[in-house]
Amino acid sequence: MAIQQKLSLMIPGPTPVPEKVLQALSKHPIGHRSKEFQDLVESTSKNLQWLHQTQNDVLTITGSGTAAMEAGIINTLSKGDKVICGENGKFGERWVKVAKEFGLEVIKIDSAWGTPLNPEEFKKILEEDQKKEIKAVILTHSETSTGIINDLETISSYIREHKTALSIVDCVTSLGACNVPVDKWQLDIVASGSQKGYMIPPGLSFISMSQKAWEATEKSNLPKFYLNLKSYKKSLLSNSNPYTPAVNLIFALDESLKMMKEEGLESIFLRHKKHKLAMSNAAKALNLKLFANEKYLSPSITAIETGEIDAEEFRKTIKNKFDILLAGGQDHLKGKIFRVGHLGYVNDRDIITVISAISKTLLDLGKITTQQAGEAVVIASKYLEEN
Amino acid sequence: MAIQQKLSLMIPGPTPVPEKVLQALSKHPIGHRSKEFQDLVESTSKNLQWLHQTQNDVLTITGSGTAAMEAGIINTLSKGDKVICGENGKFGERWVKVAKEFGLEVIKIDSAWGTPLNPEEFKKILEEDQKKEIKAVILTHSETSTGIINDLETISSYIREHKTALSIVDCVTSLGACNVPVDKWQLDIVASGSQKGYMIPPGLSFISMSQKAWEATEKSNLPKFYLNLKSYKKSLLSNSNPYTPAVNLIFALDESLKMMKEEGLESIFLRHKKHKLAMSNAAKALNLKLFANEKYLSPSITAIETGEIDAEEFRKTIKNKFDILLAGGQDHLKGKIFRVGHLGYVNDRDIITVISAISKTLLDLGKITTQQAGEAVVIASKYLEEN
Repeated sequence: MAIQQKLSLMIPGPTPVPEKVLQALSKHPIGHRSKEFQDLVESTSKNLQWLHQTQNDVLTITGSGTAAMEAGIINTLSKGDKVICGENGKFGERWVKVAKEFGLEVIKIDSAWGTPLNPEEFKKILEEDQKKEIKAVILTHSETSTGIINDLETISSYIREHKTALSIVDCVTSLGACNVPVDKWQLDIVASGSQKGYMIPPGLSFISMSQKAWEATEKSNLPKFYLNLKSYKKSLLSNSNPYTPAVNLIFALDESLKMMKEEGLESIFLRHKKHKLAMSNAAKALNLKLFANEKYLSPSITAIETGEIDAEEFRKTIKNKFDILLAGGQDHLKGKIFRVGHLGYVNDRDIITVISAISKTLLDLGKITTQQAGEAVVIASKYLEEN
Repeated sequence: MAIQQKLSLMIPGPTPVPEKVLQALSKHPIGHRSKEFQDLVESTSKNLQWLHQTQNDVLTITGSGTAAMEAGIINTLSKGDKVICGENGKFGERWVKVAKEFGLEVIKIDSAWGTPLNPEEFKKILEEDQKKEIKAVILTHSETSTGIINDLETISSYIREHKTALSIVDCVTSLGACNVPVDKWQLDIVASGSQKGYMIPPGLSFISMSQKAWEATEKSNLPKFYLNLKSYKKSLLSNSNPYTPAVNLIFALDESLKMMKEEGLESIFLRHKKHKLAMSNAAKALNLKLFANEKYLSPSITAIETGEIDAEEFRKTIKNKFDILLAGGQDHLKGKIFRVGHLGYVNDRDIITVISAISKTLLDLGKITTQQAGEAVVIASKYLEEN
């Protein structure tokens, strides 16, 4: 048996957590109605706005990212409302389910898993909607299930031209990994979760709400209580929360946001970009096929096909031999792909390490030569060393 | 300025967290779909059943106690359903609001804040409901806002006699503090939260669901997704979660439940009972009036009237001088009462300490004699030393 508790988390969440953040997490709790806690809420709220590049309110919810996405939908829409849902992966599918559960009329724009949504399809449907019946466009920026990133910049520009429809975007694995300029792109609702780029454990989710989104809440007739965002907005005015928040996760959030500010947005985005390029190019050097369209690779997850090798067995070997946890394929992709998360608190060494582990496993399976194993590290290093 | 970070939390939540639990909290996260995590879910689920004294499923939700109560309501009821809501404090009020938000027809049984709900009123209305139109009885066991405990044992017996109505009970500050035998009392839905008797920080909530409650979910037509308990039930079959759970809080939960098992239910209940008696009798010895009816004192919160003294000023003095955080009165009780939480990880010394702090503050205000201050400690000790 291997030495315990030296796990390397290379999955798209939970992501690794810095020591400093774990220490903050383990402080004795304080009262959530105290001045000290209000100061923390003030600090994290401001830094969340910085991270989102926005002046909009960014609210913190105790719950998973799904809770934040649901909140965005049920606070701004009403039963029978027509919405466009982009679907090219498991999370896109989930938002279709949520929309239908709440009685929305869904126009689905889809594409095969691993291929990006076509922005022109959004444009066409939005332009044809002269009566302005479409109330929202719901989509996933980075599809965690496939490692694809959708072209949110272009799609959001078409939503803006429609003028009426709100954008409701799952940025769970893009925020804090690549550029998501909320104000510049005029994104109305942006949802994300703590166990991703934020570098803290799961349990918190975040939602950015534009003025237009708040106006829509006035018309929304879907029932809600715990996820009623008006309560959160009202509480935020006094740096508070409507219900007891996950106090210790807020300690952690405060610390991690400060670390992110120190690193700077540009550096964070560059780091993720380099890791994406190193990982994907190394995979190709190892004769592995990328599952996602190479022009649209997510900054945070690389999905890799294993061909005739059982991907679950492959993952298991890497876990047992190197104590590195990779993610498997979901649904019909189970056994066919594995996914490497390079999101949040990941450094260059982690990337070289996971590439080496994959190489050695392929070598042992007789799938590559020693020469190829060497080349994978060389090519990865080339991308990592670029500035 | 006082030495920092030696705060004593004597509020009804967040409650103090044991060192061991904080250490568990700060471990590096692991994958929530891993075998290691499944083992944890299996262990915590079994121990949650132990704590609830039930064979029912006890589900864990990432969210506050309000999320669990809302889940209980929206998973088992439908728009227009008739329900009884017991209301004698802020939390009772909240469940009325939730019920109304989801279009339920509410029959309110109320009593003044600080007085218990009258079980006979429940009996009468339930007996008169020959057509079995009442689908649920929603009530709060221990009213955190007033320090009263409602007679759940008797009320639940009347609900059982009705046969159709479900019991949906907020046991947030009673579970893990006094006897709540879910199977014996045949409680259908019991909601609670992590930052209370569980001795872990806020962020998780729990919901126990009886077979009858699960049957009711089949008829419920209220829309829900994140709080759809069927998803949680399905995941629990494989010791998993439908959405990324608060992994580190589960580490903490596992540790705290083991500590609770070691102490034993009887000992935990006795400890809370002794603390309640020590605190309330010391308050009386200090000429302070208990806000709640003395026959129905909550095991976890003592609400104390301050008469002509401003309760907020009093709390502030205790905080500044002794670094002890007490809770204030809510809504119309603000400034009129303070509340001492003696819930979860609280020992006899904490009780003596808070009594001494209150005594000294009253002495400084010229409200009591030194003799009385001494008597308060003597009488408290008498209760603490009883077996």
